Amino acid sequence: MKKGFTTFFVILLSISIYSQKKNLAERLGYPKNAKLVIIHSDDLGVSHSQNAASTMAMEKGSVSSASIMVPCPWFSEIAAYAQAHPEADFGVHITLTSEDKYYKYGPVTSIDKVPGLVNKNGYFYSSVDSVIQNASPAEVEQETRNQVIKGKQMGVDPTHLDAHMGTVLSSLDFFKAYLKVGHEYKIPVLITSFFQPNLKTKMDSLISDKDVVVDNILSFSPGDFKTGFPAFYTNGIKNLKPGLTYLIIHTAYDDDEMRALKGNQPDWGAAWRQAEFNFFTSPACAEVLKDNNVYVITWKEIRDKITRK
Amino acid sequence: MKKGFTTFFVILLSISIYSQKKNLAERLGYPKNAKLVIIHSDDLGVSHSQNAASTMAMEKGSVSSASIMVPCPWFSEIAAYAQAHPEADFGVHITLTSEDKYYKYGPVTSIDKVPGLVNKNGYFYSSVDSVIQNASPAEVEQETRNQVIKGKQMGVDPTHLDAHMGTVLSSLDFFKAYLKVGHEYKIPVLITSFFQPNLKTKMDSLISDKDVVVDNILSFSPGDFKTGFPAFYTNGIKNLKPGLTYLIIHTAYDDDEMRALKGNQPDWGAAWRQAEFNFFTSPACAEVLKDNNVYVITWKEIRDKITRK
Repeated sequence: MKKGFTTFFVILLSISIYSQKKNLAERLGYPKNAKLVIIHSDDLGVSHSQNAASTMAMEKGSVSSASIMVPCPWFSEIAAYAQAHPEADFGVHITLTSEDKYYKYGPVTSIDKVPGLVNKNGYFYSSVDSVIQNASPAEVEQETRNQVIKGKQMGVDPTHLDAHMGTVLSSLDFFKAYLKVGHEYKIPVLITSFFQPNLKTKMDSLISDKDVVVDNILSFSPGDFKTGFPAFYTNGIKNLKPGLTYLIIHTAYDDDEMRALKGNQPDWGAAWRQAEFNFFTSPACAEVLKDNNVYVITWKEIRDKITRK
Repeated sequence: MKKGFTTFFVILLSISIYSQKKNLAERLGYPKNAKLVIIHSDDLGVSHSQNAASTMAMEKGSVSSASIMVPCPWFSEIAAYAQAHPEADFGVHITLTSEDKYYKYGPVTSIDKVPGLVNKNGYFYSSVDSVIQNASPAEVEQETRNQVIKGKQMGVDPTHLDAHMGTVLSSLDFFKAYLKVGHEYKIPVLITSFFQPNLKTKMDSLISDKDVVVDNILSFSPGDFKTGFPAFYTNGIKNLKPGLTYLIIHTAYDDDEMRALKGNQPDWGAAWRQAEFNFFTSPACAEVLKDNNVYVITWKEIRDKITRK
């Protein structure tokens, strides 16, 4: 009798836990097996070309979210746009590198306070490795926080944080700093071990149920050139799995400014960015999303329904 | 007898002083009444467009000298050009303002050390007046020196210093700081009371015979729109007087980057800069200079024959 009673309660409890353990899609109000995607444009603020193309791709195309590089000189332009378009989904693209040869920028924090973040000319380092070698987690935390503060101060209400060149996702200590700032401001941060697969277990141990881990990253990489952009993304969208896919693109025009900025580099260069712009503003893209029952979502939904709930 | 002897010496001394009192043209090796002009492009470093057009105007056109804005993100591009072209006449365009609405930059000095030079977003102020109201001469001196140091560090061997928007020529204390840095590095600085005519007497009292004061400034101003650029500059060149004229232009392309940077402003805007580029790369310009026996000179001549002699 006693045993039967206990079993009854165990079953009841299991049902209760099961019903609380909704998956991400359900927590956001979508069907349990929904294929969710954030179509996300990186690098806004870096140039006028990037700003103009990306806002166009958000207004007229399928791009649902974007993130902004606060330390860059064209930040003011996109901050003014963000103020005028409060419906647009903008995050802060935490930037600790300045990778272009002839176009440089540095921290928003006073250089004296973050000497490990800058090279001898006062600019961010070009590579993620140099940041890992030279910057302390405290410097990364301070600069991350100051980029959020400056973003907010100039009119961006960030829906998320993510990571330029994956820098703050490439070291566990940097990740902790970035996650801490996200928690402070109740802003969801992009969490993925895409940049450093060996950090997965340790990252997972740090997160709570207010944090959201994306299930997949879909992004064109140098090895995909043989496929071409439309085929790569069309196939990628057709093969989306249930869960949240983070589709990372970089939308800009292949114009004089962008060609000068990116030099002749093919990878993530001016022509690459134009090709991504072209696909994600095409009717073909909208169609393949619709035909495959993909839900294109925003970070704002995650922020307001999960992080701030 | 004694009186006659003294008179003889006075006459000898006068001849000697007279012969030493060569004018600027003579000191530079030109005829005494030569019409000298420095055809000078401002604002290099501010954008790729400005860099590309201005170096073209120096290589293929009549521009003899230019100055570079060290705090701007495209400085690296023009610094690399300067290193590859040691013959090109480049100065440091001392920059203490960031006047464009959507494209901002700040000091090369750590912000904590020059709080009076920046607004609440960490950028230079937009207007000269705000700099005068907020910055101390010590801050101006420090930033001026650091712009020269960074310029040299990244490969620019400055032939001169001059003043973006005339800021360091608009206050006597700022002028003292700027002159002091010029003297420290034995670099001639642009000296003119063009921006603040009431400072003339006080400026004159500070300079030595190693300093060079330009006799005239020739520069298109908003009021000259009715004439048009070619007519204005053609007449200006035809009417040059003996002595040193400083011809200030801003050469850039009327392209997307420059239009975004300058907005719709007509004054010193993208179309204005393209018009100056067009005239100063035209055969008509070269011809009018030649026909009027104008000597187009450089700051390097002044630096090496006067300042460093």
